[in-house]
Amino acid sequence: MVELRDDERIDYLLADRKRRIIQSQTVFAFSIDAVLLAYFTYLPLTKGKIIDLCTGNGVIPLFLSKKSKVPMTGVEIQDRLYDMAVRNVKLNELEDQIDFLHEDLIGLAQKIGYHRYDLVTCNPPYFKTIDLDKRNDNEHLAIARHEIYCTLDDVLKSCSQLVKSGGKVSMVHRPNRLAEIIQIARGYRLEPKRLQLVHPKRKKEANIVLVEFIRDGSPEMKVEPPIYIHDEDGNYTEEVAKILYGEEGSRIHGSHSEKFRL
Amino acid sequence: MVELRDDERIDYLLADRKRRIIQSQTVFAFSIDAVLLAYFTYLPLTKGKIIDLCTGNGVIPLFLSKKSKVPMTGVEIQDRLYDMAVRNVKLNELEDQIDFLHEDLIGLAQKIGYHRYDLVTCNPPYFKTIDLDKRNDNEHLAIARHEIYCTLDDVLKSCSQLVKSGGKVSMVHRPNRLAEIIQIARGYRLEPKRLQLVHPKRKKEANIVLVEFIRDGSPEMKVEPPIYIHDEDGNYTEEVAKILYGEEGSRIHGSHSEKFRL
Repeated sequence: MVELRDDERIDYLLADRKRRIIQSQTVFAFSIDAVLLAYFTYLPLTKGKIIDLCTGNGVIPLFLSKKSKVPMTGVEIQDRLYDMAVRNVKLNELEDQIDFLHEDLIGLAQKIGYHRYDLVTCNPPYFKTIDLDKRNDNEHLAIARHEIYCTLDDVLKSCSQLVKSGGKVSMVHRPNRLAEIIQIARGYRLEPKRLQLVHPKRKKEANIVLVEFIRDGSPEMKVEPPIYIHDEDGNYTEEVAKILYGEEGSRIHGSHSEKFRL
Repeated sequence: MVELRDDERIDYLLADRKRRIIQSQTVFAFSIDAVLLAYFTYLPLTKGKIIDLCTGNGVIPLFLSKKSKVPMTGVEIQDRLYDMAVRNVKLNELEDQIDFLHEDLIGLAQKIGYHRYDLVTCNPPYFKTIDLDKRNDNEHLAIARHEIYCTLDDVLKSCSQLVKSGGKVSMVHRPNRLAEIIQIARGYRLEPKRLQLVHPKRKKEANIVLVEFIRDGSPEMKVEPPIYIHDEDGNYTEEVAKILYGEEGSRIHGSHSEKFRL
């Protein structure tokens, strides 16, 4: 049995009736960004190792374990979220595949070894801490969303130190930081190879960007077709419904969609 | 009267029956990239000065002069194209607004002055010269398409030296060079502020990228909704037909579209 604390609840991992996830609106609940990152990422299926930074309640490894058999490690600095992540793995009986480190990503490679991972995934804090007015009062959410414990530079440096040469780093972020992301990443020998923009609907500016880097890759990249979240009527597009709920997506309604606020 | 040389012909500037342009398939004929750059660019309308690098037969200033009254200068290194550009301005009686320099863009600011322009536009060569197999045998086309006389670094350096602080640089390029473009530009204090991807059709990777930089701008950018060139049936999309032929676009057929090879 896994215990629930405070205002935690157990949700299904979208349409996946085999996987469940402990969440909390006041501490951490996964967003569509995590779903899109899991969808976007090309991952090793049978060989190699994956590490997920800023893992929160472990949602990314939970998603990736649906597609891949390789060992995965999630890294989380906040006790409360680390604790949720550990219970999530227990809840899903995935202890043999997924483990978690309660660590700071800064300096992590010095502790666990340089260039050991085939893939690093990361859904980092998006906002600079100087945006005080936009900052969330709730400490847990503030740390997950703002560059309080780590900056974009810290994140990319750590990704670069953890991934093998020729290995991949996959990240979700906001398009307004794209120029910085590209420049900082290249400074750490992470070459942007694949980019995908996500727009809330047609004719609207992008509000999410997905980027895949290859460490020591050649300087040549591609831009995938964009993803639109909603159609003209405000419903999920067919593509996104499929990502969220699988092939039978259009037949599932109600409570699932409430978890996403875009 | 304006003389035509060799295999030159006179086309209308798309749907604009007031503007005509001397072109040549073996020397220089404008592509949809130039049309898209002119469409994408925010330009000063009554005050300020514009300079267009790699101007070819002067197509960009010809397009921009439809929207703006400010003085424009085009820069072209190849005699044959410089000569076409000069005749194009004469043909359209735009000598009071547009002039051309037969110059190398490398070191240009040292000759004509640093930071004098409100807007720099550029449709530079896209391909590295090492791609010898892809290189065009025709010298004029090869110079326009390959980094023979100038590299991406030369182009962005020159843009940065010519534009005012706070002024704009607007460029069209290939998405595979996007990471390099962003990093090199930032090194010359050109901050990417606005990005637009162009896809040949839905579900296809982007094959053109439009970028607007602001010199000494703050590091925050946006990604515009993408442009699709063709619809599922292989016709121009409504958006692109409007860009190419104006409001009455859908009623114009035939010879116009033959000029674009995408």
